[in-house]
Amino acid sequence: MTGLPDGPLDRAACAALDRADPLAPLRERFLLDQGVIYLDGNSLGALPAATPPRLAAVVTEEWGRGLIRSWNDAGWIGAPRRLGDRVAPLVGARPGEVLVADSTSVNLFKLLGAAVRARPGRTVILSHEDNFPADLYVAQGLCELLEGRCELRTVPSAGLAAALDADTAVLMVTHVDYATGAVHDMAGLCAAAREHGALSLWDLSHSTAAVPVDLDGCGADLAVGCGYKYLNGGPGAPAFLHVAERLQGVVRSPLRGWMGHAQPFAFEPGHRHAAGIEGFLCGTPPILGMAALEAALDLWAEVDLAAVRVKSMRLGDLLVRLVDERCAGLGLELASPREAERRGSQVSLRHPGGYGVVRALIDRGVIGDFRAPDIVRLGLAPLYVRHVDVWDAVDALREVLVTGAHQRPEYAVRAAVT
Amino acid sequence: MTGLPDGPLDRAACAALDRADPLAPLRERFLLDQGVIYLDGNSLGALPAATPPRLAAVVTEEWGRGLIRSWNDAGWIGAPRRLGDRVAPLVGARPGEVLVADSTSVNLFKLLGAAVRARPGRTVILSHEDNFPADLYVAQGLCELLEGRCELRTVPSAGLAAALDADTAVLMVTHVDYATGAVHDMAGLCAAAREHGALSLWDLSHSTAAVPVDLDGCGADLAVGCGYKYLNGGPGAPAFLHVAERLQGVVRSPLRGWMGHAQPFAFEPGHRHAAGIEGFLCGTPPILGMAALEAALDLWAEVDLAAVRVKSMRLGDLLVRLVDERCAGLGLELASPREAERRGSQVSLRHPGGYGVVRALIDRGVIGDFRAPDIVRLGLAPLYVRHVDVWDAVDALREVLVTGAHQRPEYAVRAAVT
Repeated sequence: MTGLPDGPLDRAACAALDRADPLAPLRERFLLDQGVIYLDGNSLGALPAATPPRLAAVVTEEWGRGLIRSWNDAGWIGAPRRLGDRVAPLVGARPGEVLVADSTSVNLFKLLGAAVRARPGRTVILSHEDNFPADLYVAQGLCELLEGRCELRTVPSAGLAAALDADTAVLMVTHVDYATGAVHDMAGLCAAAREHGALSLWDLSHSTAAVPVDLDGCGADLAVGCGYKYLNGGPGAPAFLHVAERLQGVVRSPLRGWMGHAQPFAFEPGHRHAAGIEGFLCGTPPILGMAALEAALDLWAEVDLAAVRVKSMRLGDLLVRLVDERCAGLGLELASPREAERRGSQVSLRHPGGYGVVRALIDRGVIGDFRAPDIVRLGLAPLYVRHVDVWDAVDALREVLVTGAHQRPEYAVRAAVT
Repeated sequence: MTGLPDGPLDRAACAALDRADPLAPLRERFLLDQGVIYLDGNSLGALPAATPPRLAAVVTEEWGRGLIRSWNDAGWIGAPRRLGDRVAPLVGARPGEVLVADSTSVNLFKLLGAAVRARPGRTVILSHEDNFPADLYVAQGLCELLEGRCELRTVPSAGLAAALDADTAVLMVTHVDYATGAVHDMAGLCAAAREHGALSLWDLSHSTAAVPVDLDGCGADLAVGCGYKYLNGGPGAPAFLHVAERLQGVVRSPLRGWMGHAQPFAFEPGHRHAAGIEGFLCGTPPILGMAALEAALDLWAEVDLAAVRVKSMRLGDLLVRLVDERCAGLGLELASPREAERRGSQVSLRHPGGYGVVRALIDRGVIGDFRAPDIVRLGLAPLYVRHVDVWDAVDALREVLVTGAHQRPEYAVRAAVT
């Protein structure tokens, strides 16, 4: 029960939901312009108010005054592990199982390469054909490099468990679908992979801090995730990777660098993996991005994740219901699961003129995004999205579709980033 | 002729050199504390004065107010190529041959993997045994992943050309040695590699903006380099990679991601390499780090690189001469080439108690660093190091060694970062 009233809904009813929302005060912790309804926190999280002063201090004090000494004195050297330990409770992992480093794709390459080598004789990376394309690209690149020693096999999502067999080295699944927000069954797929002797590898980019994730409880082996979506780490924030403790001596990153060495400052010619999760480090950590992400993680440490999920489901249910009630007959089709339990923190709507719809909404201060071929994607980040925002967004959506504003010729031209 | 006076040198003579230094005004463009003599810009460049306001604007305006729209409106999406085009003239490359992305190690993996695949039938990555250890680790990781399809062979630096043969897929050389500052002969080694049908791959981390680099003029094939040393991009700044234009359709990065796709926003399930240098992108670019590096590159655009080299050689000659004259008999041995032409923008001194020497110097406001087993490394970044700084540093060095301050027991304990 996520708490939508049974009776008719109007804007006043949404405002009442905001007044009763225990997370409502958190909105003040973000710097959001008045008049902007930001429904794209699933792509780029909003700016936490704590971030600018933190980053300024890191730049002027730690870098400018501390200079090279800050690797020790300001704890820069420990940032990948320290931030990883802050991400861990958000994904059901223990301290020492998560590392913040590099990009999601680079981390995925590390773990896929490690997984394939940890299952000799098995040649298949199994994934779902609607996986986030970049994840498929990473697997394709690895397979091409390995020249036939492994292959990427994709099947429909519903067929993943049935497609596992004795050839499967690793099952690679994105937990929450980027386009539709549909949630995969982590516990069930982990168990199925285990049963077939395959490792499981999860992309948590659209899950972390948005839906409950219990990597250890599900027995997941490996995971990656993004720092700049619901975590609010900033554009291109460092990503994270997870390796279950039991596998840390077993699977080894093929991407080596001085930071992953057992003794980085020994400057030995031969590589020795650092014990534990640090063995998955490669190059020098991006300290400015790390600092922004750490400020954002401070905020998450204060937040009740169960309350986040309740609000997320309620916002989603509200959006679905308002679209049903107010946009009927306007050409929209729900692309996300209707049941809140099966849906991430977003609602996606199909519309043949979806790109124009998104552009017209942005011109009305409602910022969502478009995903090809026809998806209007509306993210519902519970820390700063209000129930009245959902009302106003649907109001704008209805107005756009009723007036045909989305068909204006300037919206036919695609921007570089769509 | 770098312009050291022939007569006896004292501090006043050094001050006179500063007064005559055409680069002297550039020091004001950095935020350096009074009383700090910073001789570690070869490890972490100092903070440009332009960086804090630029970064603050990117954070509060572009991220905070522009939100997701800034990928288009603020040009975030073009940053890797735009910054690459700014780095290109510093390394003798053309626009479109350089990309700013990821870390040096990750970029090295991309190019090594690409090079090995581009030379089928050739199995050897040839390098020098005193190469920067992290570069050797990257090669070792690749070879292990490829399970014998390639091997890393290391020889003494002087034997590189002779060790090239028909098995060599790629010659991997660090242009300026991180420990001694010795410069490898790029033109000669590129020609030798070419003659044997091997690709050449250069690590420019300690060269870029420090010594003249002419990748295209030497016919170099591939290169990587660091953004946080002489470029002053900040701790863990994004790195760069170079692929000669003639090879851009031939060599392919094994590290794929959505940003390297021909149409990132088509979200196709199959990867298609972007044309040109963008095909070497992988994940989402780290915008905060990019912004800091871009501010630093603005400064380099104003600088006469020939003047930088002249001053760098003069600072180095000055340091060598002052150590000769004032520290004779104190246990120091020059680890760098004595001839300025063969030396990067640093002077390295061996001392059996080198670690203590560096710590004692830091406590006197002279910040250099230590490299195992016995190297006191003093970087001479010409944009902000003055001739009087060199005088004062040698003065402190002499005082430390004469008084035995470096033998204090607290200096025996190694810090995490040494």
